[in-house]
Amino acid sequence: MSKKNDTDKLLVFALGGVGEIGKNMYVVQYADDIVVVDAGLKFPEEDMLGIDIVIPDISYLLENRDKVRGIVITHGHEDHIGGLSYVLKELNVPVYGTKLTLGLIEGKLKEAGLLGETRRELINADSQIELGNIQVSFFKTNHSIPDSVGVCLDTPEGSVVHTGDFKFDYTPVNGQYADLQRIAGIGQRGVLVLLSDSTNAERPGYTPSEKNVGEALEDLFYKAPQRVVVATFASNVHRVQQVIHAAEATNRKIAVVGRSMVNVVSIASELGYLHVPEGMLIEPEEVNKLAADRVVILCTGSQGEPMSALTRMARSTHRKVDILPGDTVIIAATPIPGNERYVGRTVDELFRLGAHVVYGPGSVSGVHVSGHGSQEELKLMLNLIKPKYFIPIHGEYRMLRLHAQLGEDVGIDRSHIFVLENGETVEFRDGDARRGSKVQAGNVLIDGLGVGDVGNIVLRDRKLLSQDGILVVVVTLSKQEGMILSGPDIISRGFVYVREAEGLLDEAGKIVTGTLNRLMNDKVNEWASLKTSVKDALGRYLYEQTRRRPMILPIIMEV
Amino acid sequence: MSKKNDTDKLLVFALGGVGEIGKNMYVVQYADDIVVVDAGLKFPEEDMLGIDIVIPDISYLLENRDKVRGIVITHGHEDHIGGLSYVLKELNVPVYGTKLTLGLIEGKLKEAGLLGETRRELINADSQIELGNIQVSFFKTNHSIPDSVGVCLDTPEGSVVHTGDFKFDYTPVNGQYADLQRIAGIGQRGVLVLLSDSTNAERPGYTPSEKNVGEALEDLFYKAPQRVVVATFASNVHRVQQVIHAAEATNRKIAVVGRSMVNVVSIASELGYLHVPEGMLIEPEEVNKLAADRVVILCTGSQGEPMSALTRMARSTHRKVDILPGDTVIIAATPIPGNERYVGRTVDELFRLGAHVVYGPGSVSGVHVSGHGSQEELKLMLNLIKPKYFIPIHGEYRMLRLHAQLGEDVGIDRSHIFVLENGETVEFRDGDARRGSKVQAGNVLIDGLGVGDVGNIVLRDRKLLSQDGILVVVVTLSKQEGMILSGPDIISRGFVYVREAEGLLDEAGKIVTGTLNRLMNDKVNEWASLKTSVKDALGRYLYEQTRRRPMILPIIMEV
Repeated sequence: MSKKNDTDKLLVFALGGVGEIGKNMYVVQYADDIVVVDAGLKFPEEDMLGIDIVIPDISYLLENRDKVRGIVITHGHEDHIGGLSYVLKELNVPVYGTKLTLGLIEGKLKEAGLLGETRRELINADSQIELGNIQVSFFKTNHSIPDSVGVCLDTPEGSVVHTGDFKFDYTPVNGQYADLQRIAGIGQRGVLVLLSDSTNAERPGYTPSEKNVGEALEDLFYKAPQRVVVATFASNVHRVQQVIHAAEATNRKIAVVGRSMVNVVSIASELGYLHVPEGMLIEPEEVNKLAADRVVILCTGSQGEPMSALTRMARSTHRKVDILPGDTVIIAATPIPGNERYVGRTVDELFRLGAHVVYGPGSVSGVHVSGHGSQEELKLMLNLIKPKYFIPIHGEYRMLRLHAQLGEDVGIDRSHIFVLENGETVEFRDGDARRGSKVQAGNVLIDGLGVGDVGNIVLRDRKLLSQDGILVVVVTLSKQEGMILSGPDIISRGFVYVREAEGLLDEAGKIVTGTLNRLMNDKVNEWASLKTSVKDALGRYLYEQTRRRPMILPIIMEV
Repeated sequence: MSKKNDTDKLLVFALGGVGEIGKNMYVVQYADDIVVVDAGLKFPEEDMLGIDIVIPDISYLLENRDKVRGIVITHGHEDHIGGLSYVLKELNVPVYGTKLTLGLIEGKLKEAGLLGETRRELINADSQIELGNIQVSFFKTNHSIPDSVGVCLDTPEGSVVHTGDFKFDYTPVNGQYADLQRIAGIGQRGVLVLLSDSTNAERPGYTPSEKNVGEALEDLFYKAPQRVVVATFASNVHRVQQVIHAAEATNRKIAVVGRSMVNVVSIASELGYLHVPEGMLIEPEEVNKLAADRVVILCTGSQGEPMSALTRMARSTHRKVDILPGDTVIIAATPIPGNERYVGRTVDELFRLGAHVVYGPGSVSGVHVSGHGSQEELKLMLNLIKPKYFIPIHGEYRMLRLHAQLGEDVGIDRSHIFVLENGETVEFRDGDARRGSKVQAGNVLIDGLGVGDVGNIVLRDRKLLSQDGILVVVVTLSKQEGMILSGPDIISRGFVYVREAEGLLDEAGKIVTGTLNRLMNDKVNEWASLKTSVKDALGRYLYEQTRRRPMILPIIMEV
């Protein structure tokens, strides 16, 4: 599937991240030099039964492994770094990232046993690095995690700008301003192609500032008569900082609960991205020693994840923290599509415990804003960069298309805009662009330790099993004597509860016996025919009786 | 679980519909007379694998079958009528409903073979019926299906008012005004307890009028350069009427596509709830004979349901209708929580086909409004009825609690408000109310034809099977000789793809052999021990190697 490249052209494509939210991985190749931007994971869709995570298919990179100069990481979110250790296991190349980003990556590499052998290069917004023919520089952006950058890749064919994930927040927390001057300067020097974040291309207007959330939090903390529980994304260090500010302003102490929240608070304070006043943090065990209106519990679980701290508290199964009547629980996040029901159930349980719950879309609750720019911000980026060509990235197909429309609206010629699927390439040569051939791209499904071994057949079987279960039919035959020696024994898992379905299963057994006897009388005794006939006869009978189609697994033994 | 009742008290409770959206069934019992309001279904939650629908547990009604005087239906939505044929199969009582409601019910009864034996009683907003000691009357409401009513049940203990599903729409389509005068009159006569719809208790303000949608549709029809495709809920006859109006105003013809849309259009026109101008409807096959700007395709699939008309068109697998570049597709519905991803995927496919798509929350798209009243309308109902007691119904627990708060806000004493779980009763006697004992209530899960036979064990097995599949291990032993005669044969379904995992399965086989030989050497030969040991040893090995836990089913045969 991969193609030979001439030595004088630029190739830009995604191995993940277009036509989907997640597993971001973009490739910029000039001649024999490849730079990869990001290496993310995606969480499984609902039909990927039993799958833990999904990562990009990197066959193209493996086939061109001698050309890959490095992986540049824009920021430390899972959809940008979560696939990294899987990629590095097969492709040992240097990784470039800012301080917090590398801090978060190091934890993952340590877990995967790759920390020692991976070359990690610290960059900041002023770094300039040379990766073969490609000069890479950076610019600060606003996003829902500190130390996020956009990337400018200067090639002999022209400049490629990748925005990373961004919004424009004019009053950011902790002073991480988007570097408008530098972005404008890059635009002024001339940009061949812009790759820009499409997450909020469906949303009109501007995304509000993270500062708004801080004010809303402080207000809620003041009013809360008893304890305050705040659940948010662990990686949203800005949000965590504002919880700390609000706690300080209202004279409360904070207990941090939930593994990933504890982890991020520790890494981010260590690296200087989170400022925690002396004596502000208490242990969860100490919560009950303080007056209720002196306490904040900061935790994970804003998406209703089954094993998270907030979910456990809501179900009264958390080891250390109970929700008490009169507590104020603030869910400082909007449910990600697909998680609404989980969040809803958590809120229900919290209400049952007598808590006052602040929840719902950020526009209603006031305690969440998106980390991605809305339509007007996307247009601002397009206007600052003024690219010749435009490739919307980081979004479902509809978002890419709407973002493409915004590109047209600000004056980019329709023929200069490329909406891509993963693996579809754009070739630039002598200032012109055209669609190139497709490279291999797709989902690699990871279940447990295995990589790549959960294919369509396994998934199809899981789907069938999940719908109506399985019936195993065991029979021992003597083909010589043409008779059944033992069985049929029928074992049901996930089809019917045996004690309640004895009649049905007895009858099923008779059908198996009848089918086999008839075939043996007719001297049909190839295994395949016997098995197929048993499956067909039994399947038909069970469907008639129950309108269900369990998987049927005949095990016919011969003695 | 059911309780003996004294003969002089009123009992009110839900068998379904509180703490959930769906399977509405409310019970009003005075002395020996029981009136049931609604008999709905619920669609399965994501952990109810393989389940088709969920209906209420009606044990209480069956135990008191001689007291049940009838089932009154408020309107024809599935969450109010979808459980009816299951209930009537076990409890043959009269059913009361308005014309359209009965029309929709009759289709269901016919399918279930119950049409002949079911007494169906047509009511209208002016009907008065006596069901034992309970006098039942009705009032018109606005909702997203015509012929919706609220119910007033006058008992010797006082009046119970059940709102049904409602909003207040001052400019309704087809003139179905909510009867404010009658509702106010009922309030003026004095109401003991109000049961009121909580669906939109989380939403501030007022729900916009259905008329707004009509205007938005007409506007879009005018602007559309080519064909218009509109997907909406089949049962929303008002919406369908507005599509017809907009088509008329813009000189377009309508092709109706999708089984339930065809069905509802036919029943509703026949019964006079839908007014279709002569010559307006065309067959789907005729679409291509007309100019593109003269066509509207009205179809199902607004929730991205996999088998629906719109989903098939979007995937280019519909037999009769293709989406063409330049078509305008209007999704006139907000995704129900849980369906966002399905709708998103449909929109993506439509974009890929080159369609212009109008979608998203009604507040953004303008082509959908809710059929349920928001907070201000809920307060209006509370103010019109001025009940002594208040039971919020029809909603998830959080919605009931927020509705209860609205009740307090308008002046109902907190001790007069009851937030219930299904089966929790309120007893009224001599004008006082208190919580009574609990009656049996719960979910009955229906998979195929069976009723009640998919219990926790079957669901747990399906869950396990869906995660990591199953391994069947077949061995034939001679216990006498203490040796394995054949096998172990290992069959994988949904665990690994056998061709890619030969090494793993070979090793697994050796572990089974080793385990069995060791046990037989030790003269352990009870079936149970052999099976458990094989399961444990194999499970441990596979988890170490793969971090997965397939179900393991050892089949050990003895000869």
